[in-house]
Amino acid sequence: MTIANANETAVDRMLRGDPQLVDVIPAKEAVDGLGDRLILHAGPPLDWADMCGPMRGAVTGIAVFEGWAENLEQAEEAASKGFFEFAPNHDFDCVGPMTGMTTISQPLMVVENKAFGNRAYCAINEGLGKVMRFGGNDEEVRDRLKWIRDVLGPALGRAIRAADGIPLKSLVGRGLTMGDEMHQRNVACSGLILRELAPHLARTTDNPGDLADILAFIGGNDQFFLNVAMAMGKAIMDPVRNIDKSTVVTAMARNGTDFGIRVSGTGDRWFTAPVEMPEGLYFPGYSEKDANPDMGDSTIIETIGLGGFAMAASPAVAGFVGAGPASEALNFTRTMAEITVSENPEWAIPAMDYQGVPTGIDIRRVVETGLAPTINTGIAHKEPGVGQVGAGVVRAPLKCFEQALFAFAEKIGVA
Amino acid sequence: MTIANANETAVDRMLRGDPQLVDVIPAKEAVDGLGDRLILHAGPPLDWADMCGPMRGAVTGIAVFEGWAENLEQAEEAASKGFFEFAPNHDFDCVGPMTGMTTISQPLMVVENKAFGNRAYCAINEGLGKVMRFGGNDEEVRDRLKWIRDVLGPALGRAIRAADGIPLKSLVGRGLTMGDEMHQRNVACSGLILRELAPHLARTTDNPGDLADILAFIGGNDQFFLNVAMAMGKAIMDPVRNIDKSTVVTAMARNGTDFGIRVSGTGDRWFTAPVEMPEGLYFPGYSEKDANPDMGDSTIIETIGLGGFAMAASPAVAGFVGAGPASEALNFTRTMAEITVSENPEWAIPAMDYQGVPTGIDIRRVVETGLAPTINTGIAHKEPGVGQVGAGVVRAPLKCFEQALFAFAEKIGVA
Repeated sequence: MTIANANETAVDRMLRGDPQLVDVIPAKEAVDGLGDRLILHAGPPLDWADMCGPMRGAVTGIAVFEGWAENLEQAEEAASKGFFEFAPNHDFDCVGPMTGMTTISQPLMVVENKAFGNRAYCAINEGLGKVMRFGGNDEEVRDRLKWIRDVLGPALGRAIRAADGIPLKSLVGRGLTMGDEMHQRNVACSGLILRELAPHLARTTDNPGDLADILAFIGGNDQFFLNVAMAMGKAIMDPVRNIDKSTVVTAMARNGTDFGIRVSGTGDRWFTAPVEMPEGLYFPGYSEKDANPDMGDSTIIETIGLGGFAMAASPAVAGFVGAGPASEALNFTRTMAEITVSENPEWAIPAMDYQGVPTGIDIRRVVETGLAPTINTGIAHKEPGVGQVGAGVVRAPLKCFEQALFAFAEKIGVA
Repeated sequence: MTIANANETAVDRMLRGDPQLVDVIPAKEAVDGLGDRLILHAGPPLDWADMCGPMRGAVTGIAVFEGWAENLEQAEEAASKGFFEFAPNHDFDCVGPMTGMTTISQPLMVVENKAFGNRAYCAINEGLGKVMRFGGNDEEVRDRLKWIRDVLGPALGRAIRAADGIPLKSLVGRGLTMGDEMHQRNVACSGLILRELAPHLARTTDNPGDLADILAFIGGNDQFFLNVAMAMGKAIMDPVRNIDKSTVVTAMARNGTDFGIRVSGTGDRWFTAPVEMPEGLYFPGYSEKDANPDMGDSTIIETIGLGGFAMAASPAVAGFVGAGPASEALNFTRTMAEITVSENPEWAIPAMDYQGVPTGIDIRRVVETGLAPTINTGIAHKEPGVGQVGAGVVRAPLKCFEQALFAFAEKIGVA
């Protein structure tokens, strides 16, 4: 088996993936080994001592939400004394945006890759602004999580089951013709999935007030689909792991402190480097000095050829993330095609005459060209409790790819 | 007042328009003078003897629906004996797609131009395929119209009133960033309006089965928004009529036999020419020889700078209507900018770095350049009762513009 063959196998598995949103269930039912006081977070492994402000904010907030502490101060005290156990989402078939908190009582969306039988999980998107994924943790944030747990999650689960699942590949294909890149712009796919689910929600939600609230909540959140897309990304990439001699990236993730990647041929080992600061646009009243470095498992979106890789499909996002003139959005996609193995014919970009999105990041090409993956990202305030302050573009640190290539070379015996 | 000043006034009124969807009410309440046996149709005036196949199909179908005939044969007999009165939608503040039937018991969507106080009306879109606007007229088609009259129309009216109206200008602006051009592609705006209305539908629809049916009907119809956009177009253009010395087109419409235009400076006079055949793509099993010539009031969409004029916003529609490579969609918009007075900064196209859509068709420029307005259109089968067979691009006949310019010159005393 040559490296080229191995990478062909990797991309073939990516393209054969058939992700479907099949359910919403409580995390404790979904995730083996998830128990009291275990907090899953975004990115590579991380201890309390190394956590950035918003990550600490989210940890203390989720601890209060779960009833493991009475208030944020107590939670912080408990965390610093080692009362909680921390682990990456990726180790438990999960992903989470930004801080990426996953704990036992949260409802998780279940995406099953029908071609391979594996499942991946992600919590439900909380909306924009002051939310836990950006480090928000006050009562308003926690009350929203309770409503998601008690009302929205169960209702979504009933509707998705009544719909007999929602195939995601074609829905994302459609979203690409409607200006979404599925990372910082999900307005089309959020609408498309709402219109699929709405009749089922109506048939399976008894309380008309709850139904109206649910329809308003989903309809009012342009990023609702982000978390679905992330679980989809994880479900597509997990079967690509552990292909001997493949140099294709299977995960990229950040914990607010470090950026980490995993590569198919080197298994579940993380190659990490200090995470970079996004360059972007800030909401009124905020600037670069408020920003936390890059964070979240949402880079799984770029790993499957969307987000920054699909910028050409989404000229409107270029303005939102401060990536230059909309007319130059195509250049981002063209550049990412230089570091990928193939393209995805089912995820085609109309403005590029239906060229498929760049698919299968090859660490060799990244190191050779010096072109790091382009990531469209949200920007969190660096202090706990504040929330989102902007959106921007960030590059994955080249050092991760260099380390990975060195380890890969050692493993196949050429270093 | 010079022609340039007059046209500036015309475009200023277009840009100041503030169209909002404010209600759905039965046509007999909405439209003054609408009574028994009066059938409003698309395009300029037309007698039964001159009607094309699908127009005749729709007339006989709507007559049975209204109870003016027991069956299609009887309706045809009655029509040929002059039992029905025919008039253009445009004469009654209405517009209708393709055949454009408007009669007393149909529910009409009401768009009010808040800046000028005028209202315009359009029936609710029936969905795709075998439908009355494409000449479908059998029991299935008529039963759908009954459900629209008895269930959907009243429910939509309640929801829109509960929402206190839906502002359309910003919604359309958003749709342009999501690949809609609002004539042959309305998938984004249909989703955006559904998500606005869904919570209100849930709060105001008592019967859960009806609610689920309504959500599924709207969610399953990518062209639901077309009829809203048409009423919006009429509401925007009506205040632009009768500006002395203005050469701006206030309406374009086709009845399947003739294409007609109206010009601000020449009032409500129609300038007509035989309608052309669309060039386009056909659904499987159909070809050009099945096609009816171009039809419908939907060209009001191009009159306000959308549809074929906004092709650059919608590379995906270029393929659907057979207009060439998606990457060349920008050229259509650039060309239409040559025959328009201005552009609309609130309806901006991301891929053109937020240039506004070409606004205010100037008959002088059309005649000087020989560039006829580009129209994205559906294609009906030429026989009554069949329905849609394709979609394509058609040019407005230059002869209408030449006639209009001649009449205009006579009126201002230069011919």
